Amino acid sequence: MKKTIDIGLVGAGRIGAVHAATIQRHIPEARIAAIADPRISAATTLADRVAVERVLESPRQIMEDESIDAVLLCSSTETHPELVVEAARAGKQVFCEKPLALEIDEIERCIGATRDAGVLLQVGFNRRFDPDFARLRELVHGGAVGEVHLVRITSRDPEPPPLDYVRSSGGLFVDMMIHDIDMARFLTGREVVEVTTTAGVLVDPAIGEAGDVDTAVTTLRFDDGALCTIDNSRRAVYGYDQRVEVFGSGGMVQNRNRAATATIVTGPEGPTEPPPLHFFMDRYLDAYRAQLEAFVLAVQGGGAPPVGGEDALEATRIAQAARRSHDEARTIPMG
Amino acid sequence: MKKTIDIGLVGAGRIGAVHAATIQRHIPEARIAAIADPRISAATTLADRVAVERVLESPRQIMEDESIDAVLLCSSTETHPELVVEAARAGKQVFCEKPLALEIDEIERCIGATRDAGVLLQVGFNRRFDPDFARLRELVHGGAVGEVHLVRITSRDPEPPPLDYVRSSGGLFVDMMIHDIDMARFLTGREVVEVTTTAGVLVDPAIGEAGDVDTAVTTLRFDDGALCTIDNSRRAVYGYDQRVEVFGSGGMVQNRNRAATATIVTGPEGPTEPPPLHFFMDRYLDAYRAQLEAFVLAVQGGGAPPVGGEDALEATRIAQAARRSHDEARTIPMG
Amino acid sequence: MKKTIDIGLVGAGRIGAVHAATIQRHIPEARIAAIADPRISAATTLADRVAVERVLESPRQIMEDESIDAVLLCSSTETHPELVVEAARAGKQVFCEKPLALEIDEIERCIGATRDAGVLLQVGFNRRFDPDFARLRELVHGGAVGEVHLVRITSRDPEPPPLDYVRSSGGLFVDMMIHDIDMARFLTGREVVEVTTTAGVLVDPAIGEAGDVDTAVTTLRFDDGALCTIDNSRRAVYGYDQRVEVFGSGGMVQNRNRAATATIVTGPEGPTEPPPLHFFMDRYLDAYRAQLEAFVLAVQGGGAPPVGGEDALEATRIAQAARRSHDEARTIPMG
Amino acid sequence: MKKTIDIGLVGAGRIGAVHAATIQRHIPEARIAAIADPRISAATTLADRVAVERVLESPRQIMEDESIDAVLLCSSTETHPELVVEAARAGKQVFCEKPLALEIDEIERCIGATRDAGVLLQVGFNRRFDPDFARLRELVHGGAVGEVHLVRITSRDPEPPPLDYVRSSGGLFVDMMIHDIDMARFLTGREVVEVTTTAGVLVDPAIGEAGDVDTAVTTLRFDDGALCTIDNSRRAVYGYDQRVEVFGSGGMVQNRNRAATATIVTGPEGPTEPPPLHFFMDRYLDAYRAQLEAFVLAVQGGGAPPVGGEDALEATRIAQAARRSHDEARTIPMG
Repeated sequence: MKKTIDIGLVGAGRIGAVHAATIQRHIPEARIAAIADPRISAATTLADRVAVERVLESPRQIMEDESIDAVLLCSSTETHPELVVEAARAGKQVFCEKPLALEIDEIERCIGATRDAGVLLQVGFNRRFDPDFARLRELVHGGAVGEVHLVRITSRDPEPPPLDYVRSSGGLFVDMMIHDIDMARFLTGREVVEVTTTAGVLVDPAIGEAGDVDTAVTTLRFDDGALCTIDNSRRAVYGYDQRVEVFGSGGMVQNRNRAATATIVTGPEGPTEPPPLHFFMDRYLDAYRAQLEAFVLAVQGGGAPPVGGEDALEATRIAQAARRSHDEARTIPMG
Repeated sequence: MKKTIDIGLVGAGRIGAVHAATIQRHIPEARIAAIADPRISAATTLADRVAVERVLESPRQIMEDESIDAVLLCSSTETHPELVVEAARAGKQVFCEKPLALEIDEIERCIGATRDAGVLLQVGFNRRFDPDFARLRELVHGGAVGEVHLVRITSRDPEPPPLDYVRSSGGLFVDMMIHDIDMARFLTGREVVEVTTTAGVLVDPAIGEAGDVDTAVTTLRFDDGALCTIDNSRRAVYGYDQRVEVFGSGGMVQNRNRAATATIVTGPEGPTEPPPLHFFMDRYLDAYRAQLEAFVLAVQGGGAPPVGGEDALEATRIAQAARRSHDEARTIPMG
Repeated sequence: MKKTIDIGLVGAGRIGAVHAATIQRHIPEARIAAIADPRISAATTLADRVAVERVLESPRQIMEDESIDAVLLCSSTETHPELVVEAARAGKQVFCEKPLALEIDEIERCIGATRDAGVLLQVGFNRRFDPDFARLRELVHGGAVGEVHLVRITSRDPEPPPLDYVRSSGGLFVDMMIHDIDMARFLTGREVVEVTTTAGVLVDPAIGEAGDVDTAVTTLRFDDGALCTIDNSRRAVYGYDQRVEVFGSGGMVQNRNRAATATIVTGPEGPTEPPPLHFFMDRYLDAYRAQLEAFVLAVQGGGAPPVGGEDALEATRIAQAARRSHDEARTIPMG
Repeated sequence: MKKTIDIGLVGAGRIGAVHAATIQRHIPEARIAAIADPRISAATTLADRVAVERVLESPRQIMEDESIDAVLLCSSTETHPELVVEAARAGKQVFCEKPLALEIDEIERCIGATRDAGVLLQVGFNRRFDPDFARLRELVHGGAVGEVHLVRITSRDPEPPPLDYVRSSGGLFVDMMIHDIDMARFLTGREVVEVTTTAGVLVDPAIGEAGDVDTAVTTLRFDDGALCTIDNSRRAVYGYDQRVEVFGSGGMVQNRNRAATATIVTGPEGPTEPPPLHFFMDRYLDAYRAQLEAFVLAVQGGGAPPVGGEDALEATRIAQAARRSHDEARTIPMG
């Protein structure tokens, strides 16, 4: 394999811009060779900013370019399955943003196509690459808590997404909670056998009118009997709240939220620390870089990516079960 | 009313001893006038230790003594209803340890008897009197979190009780979780309309054989739509873990665990703080005193006690629903 | 020795009231038998509050009362030496508030008189009895930091005392810093061989006009070469700031400030904890009780009190050297 | 000025390698055009690693190359003055590692030469660019503590440098404490008028034999009367300890140490956090980048660098006074 990996970026939106900048600035082993987006001006603006020369209107042009080794799929969710299949057929290594797709059969199609083509499929569960969560997993797997009994995940956004996004993205269950479900599987290394969710609309009635919930508590049971509770909210006024606790027979491990600085101001009211980072891209800056480094490494070495299509499949199945549990007010066994 | 309140203590066990010492040492407005316990040597030992002169074999003798103003019922749970009724008929003010009773009709009988007799009935939900939880409630009611969206309660014992106690006490649901259910009602001032529990036996199979669970996650929905998650474990190796978080539209309030000292040791492995206090009586020392001060104040003033029979009734109904939810793997609506 | 120790309290001011309440409420092995204060109405008020029957105008009456076993000297500093000597001659065990006296020869007179009379002399260095500082000492002596290299003491009052008190009490050096000097000796178990102080008037010019400083940094060198830095301020707007850090070849131990509750409020500005306790009597409540328990125990057992006249002597010598260092802008060797 | 700034790096040692990687990886506006080091193999190795094509044996070749805009001087301290002067004469913009020089007249020569040549002189006080310290300064200057009364700086290395380095570098005073002195000036924006130091050899007698101390407490008085205490140690077993506290009439600001992760492990002994980062290059990674970004920005804009020769001059004068204070056991007035 040649020295530098040439990557075609599909989608010049927010997350595409992050990935492009990361590749260009921080990963010398790869470079963005072309950016494709039907919104050509967005593509051009981004290309200028990150010093990419080729701007394309259609992802097809990327698939057809034999000099391109791999694709980053950062377009909207409903385009993912088709693009993954096309990329696989063209022999490209695939990194696809999450959710890979909203429906199980589409995800299975993605997995099948990449498997058949013998190419990688890595899904953008960036949190696995966060140093704190990676460290927690290492501690759990190293025995720091003994047998896991209980995982507690708090995952609260600083503010709700636009209503259009709520409607098209899969909503709280498949777009937001899916990260936490993946985290639960990642930390424990176990499979989920039961899902129970209680949810509601507390943040903004418009979210309810859009057919979604904005606050949820989900309980998972793993195949070894351990339990996990996930609480989600679409609005935490103090910032992006991302905390995990793993409790077991031998103790407990936790992470703190990350703030912009490690400074404390003590006035007459008491000591105040900076709030958690507000923006998910600030919070997971290191993770975004690390996941692309892992992808590039997998492409170079031909090994398996650290988080693949099967992980997306499983997390989506669980997220869908959570929604059903909420709808039916009962525990859903995972088949 | 005379200056000093004469109290008859029924039950010279562990919690009875705590209450006796608290009254004798720290509440000059009251005194233990007599201790009754069929295990007469236990009663005598305690009486010596806390300088009480009268030791009785039967609680009936306390009920018959007209000089006694109030009773502290610290005998085993199954004796509570009969004793409450007797005390009420004898015109005594009643402080009864939790659980008031295991069955709803018994609790209703206690409430009825004390109401008919015009005497107080205070139930030993000591945690309401803990300075940290009282402060959290004050903050929540003062608007510090805006509208409540989510309450998170972690409540883990340092070690399981004896199996005999597991069998007779009401178990994790009615003996242990009942405190957390009461805390949820106390902090929010709302009523619970739905209960969902997922539980299991992870700490010790013998607890399962005794018909109980040792690990549980419970989700409550309040009548204003807010949610609450409670996680319970019978064994936290690092101590008695009692944490609460209330999250809402305007922010979040939390408490830390309390430790024996506020000291930090930093060696090559990093800074270590002392573990949470291990023993519930150390953790809630202040709360035990404050709840008896409140009782004595209510007796003096003839006002309503801060936590009464109706609170016990409601918490018990919810605890029973939690057990049913676990058994039936579905959400239980509270009628 | 009879069962209950009868104590005569001299001085019905603020600290006298604390000690009286502590004895009467919390130390069943002793009782305040009489209170003497020339301000007879203050004595009477206090006596009523803590249920003491005898009120006297002159401490002499306490000294002459053979039924009294011990005295608590809580009158103003300049009266201490004469009272200690009188009490010793009368065969009373002596607890004297700090500073024992402002001048070295007076302190030596106190030590001599109590030694000659064979009675105890305990000085009110209450901080030694604080659970956190006692724990730090235990850790240091147990080897948690290896060889001590550096002690850092921060000691800041929430607000300056009245100017009259500044003038008569010994000021920042002999009244305030003396506690920190004693803490340095207590924690390390070493003697001070050199003192260097830099100080100034930053809080209030009136303190300077009264002949004192209000902000100071003092460096001590111990006889084993270890160093200690003490920083003092007369006004910390956030409360009573009492922090200690001991650093050595094997690590570091520290204490945190204590707050009224262990609660955290997180709004948009970030997480805020309650400020340190403001009032020294709240901060050192446990310590005040523990030091009197230690005194009563020493009286009962006839052993040496845990902090005696020699400690007062040494701390005063060092405090005076600190003042001289400041005046002469040089390091003062302790003879 | 052309688009990319061409930089000549002098010195391929540890800090030179850090700066080279930073420029090449993270600062697209500049590039390392050549590396000069008489140890040619070191230069070649580094050049390969950071993709620099030209390797030179003598810094003179850099000075003579007209295509080079600026120099980074990372050679040993004693070579700095000559190189600064040569670079200035050649019209290069100058970034020089600290200490700029060990002697005052040499520093003045550097300042004079760069001033005469009209080129920049930035000195590598990297800590000013640390986000936490920059934030503290911003808070202090924004009034968060009111008038500054007291600055406390703790600065402890994880382990002593090699003895050769101790001997040649300026030692604890001029090589290590100089950073803390600069921090004191940076945070307060005030000048130092008095210095008092107490120091000793506690970590390793060999350091004493090499003519240096390894533990020191220094007190500064600023021109507005505020005080500052700096404590230094050459060995903190728990990592690189870099804490600052600024206390004033309105409150206090502090920073925490930074650790590799924000994770907590709670076992039976209590909660443990990761130790402070051990290696100064990890701790100040962001700061190293930010200071070079500032330099590049100053070169581009022709403005003054944020930390210049006058700062080096002042910090060195104070460090020398600290050593004299230690030698003479007295306060040294600056001025």
